[in-house]
Amino acid sequence: MERIKSLQNAKVKNLVRLHQKKYRDETGLFLVEGDHLISEARKAGILHYVITDEDDCPYEKYLLVTPEIMKKISTNVSAVHRIGVCEKCKMTVKEPKRVLLLDDVQDPGNLGTLIRTAVSFSFDAICCSKHTVDVYNEKVIRSTQGALFYIPVIYSDLTQTIETLKHDDFTIVGTSLHEASGMRSFSAQEKMAFVLGNEGQGVSDEILSLCDAKLFIEMQGFESLNVAVAGGIVMYTFQGHHA
Amino acid sequence: MERIKSLQNAKVKNLVRLHQKKYRDETGLFLVEGDHLISEARKAGILHYVITDEDDCPYEKYLLVTPEIMKKISTNVSAVHRIGVCEKCKMTVKEPKRVLLLDDVQDPGNLGTLIRTAVSFSFDAICCSKHTVDVYNEKVIRSTQGALFYIPVIYSDLTQTIETLKHDDFTIVGTSLHEASGMRSFSAQEKMAFVLGNEGQGVSDEILSLCDAKLFIEMQGFESLNVAVAGGIVMYTFQGHHA
Repeated sequence: MERIKSLQNAKVKNLVRLHQKKYRDETGLFLVEGDHLISEARKAGILHYVITDEDDCPYEKYLLVTPEIMKKISTNVSAVHRIGVCEKCKMTVKEPKRVLLLDDVQDPGNLGTLIRTAVSFSFDAICCSKHTVDVYNEKVIRSTQGALFYIPVIYSDLTQTIETLKHDDFTIVGTSLHEASGMRSFSAQEKMAFVLGNEGQGVSDEILSLCDAKLFIEMQGFESLNVAVAGGIVMYTFQGHHA
Repeated sequence: MERIKSLQNAKVKNLVRLHQKKYRDETGLFLVEGDHLISEARKAGILHYVITDEDDCPYEKYLLVTPEIMKKISTNVSAVHRIGVCEKCKMTVKEPKRVLLLDDVQDPGNLGTLIRTAVSFSFDAICCSKHTVDVYNEKVIRSTQGALFYIPVIYSDLTQTIETLKHDDFTIVGTSLHEASGMRSFSAQEKMAFVLGNEGQGVSDEILSLCDAKLFIEMQGFESLNVAVAGGIVMYTFQGHHA
């Protein structure tokens, strides 16, 4: 196979552009770095091909480039020898019982960790407000540790999503420090959706006003939890059950 | 006040060196960036002085420098106008009942988040193995959101620490995915210490063999949690009670 050597190569330029949300949206493609994520993407059936600077690539479809080009395409500090080009996941949500709603979560690590936790606690879908960080951001993907390929992550208007869920008999639970009840005294329902908010502002008043219940995580003193930790505690407490 | 203008100034050079653990250990000093952390450090009585590039500094003791020098001392991507020079916290542990033990946690964000969570759930101390990331690392400090000033964080040989805790009637609980019991069926004890492990390897076999009980967080399917999330769930479940 011929090795691409020029940083000016059109293919290379298009791959570098995938670091921007705009181009990911346009092409429907995104990148994953390292063997663990590539193999998870292949299992999920969304791997198009692999970019590599090594001659002996274990993947059938690959593009051979120079280490210099790898460095340009990679966002890792240390050298990466394989990057997967993937097609955005299209998963359907079937009879959901546990849904996570994210109201403008900003930090990529937090979103990735929430996705990983949601899969571990058998949640069926994650709905993000339109200002939540993009799920195909490379830092998000890294933090999911591959969990991204096991759960639908949908971007939509949260107000409308909440209405749809209510129609489908979901209990909508907001998390809040004010005018809320302790989580331990709340019974699990068949269909539940939990709203977590922005790192600085929490869940917006508008969204909180649409919730059927407002719960807080019982604690003393500092009263400050990272949103991914708060989400972990909520999802553990009300986890779903896979068939 | 005279403004320091040279990047070659000896004081400036010494401040930049505080990004390295070696110099923090030698001097007993560390840096915090931004007003929230500076004000928390002042409350804790460990703030020495503030470095600033603004003439109207609200702090009594400050060192005036140029924006260029601020940029050199800061680790933030965006401009910071105040950095606090602090003395390492020396806190004593009094009659502890809830202790967190960290076996080689590597990621600064994870350590910072665990400290923040420990304070929220009324833990009394955190003991780190010697290979755990340094608590005065700037990314750790940022993730603690100031919680660092409210809990003693001690570095020691975990094996010895566990022995000391056992002498003091502590139940030592390891977290593990193998040969462990579900956390929900375990009753809270008066004095408990919980061990969380390294991001890749978990708690080492050596440390696990010293534990009185091995617990796992009940989940289905993916079986993969970020260590800060796992710690959050454990600390919420067995939280302490402040007087």
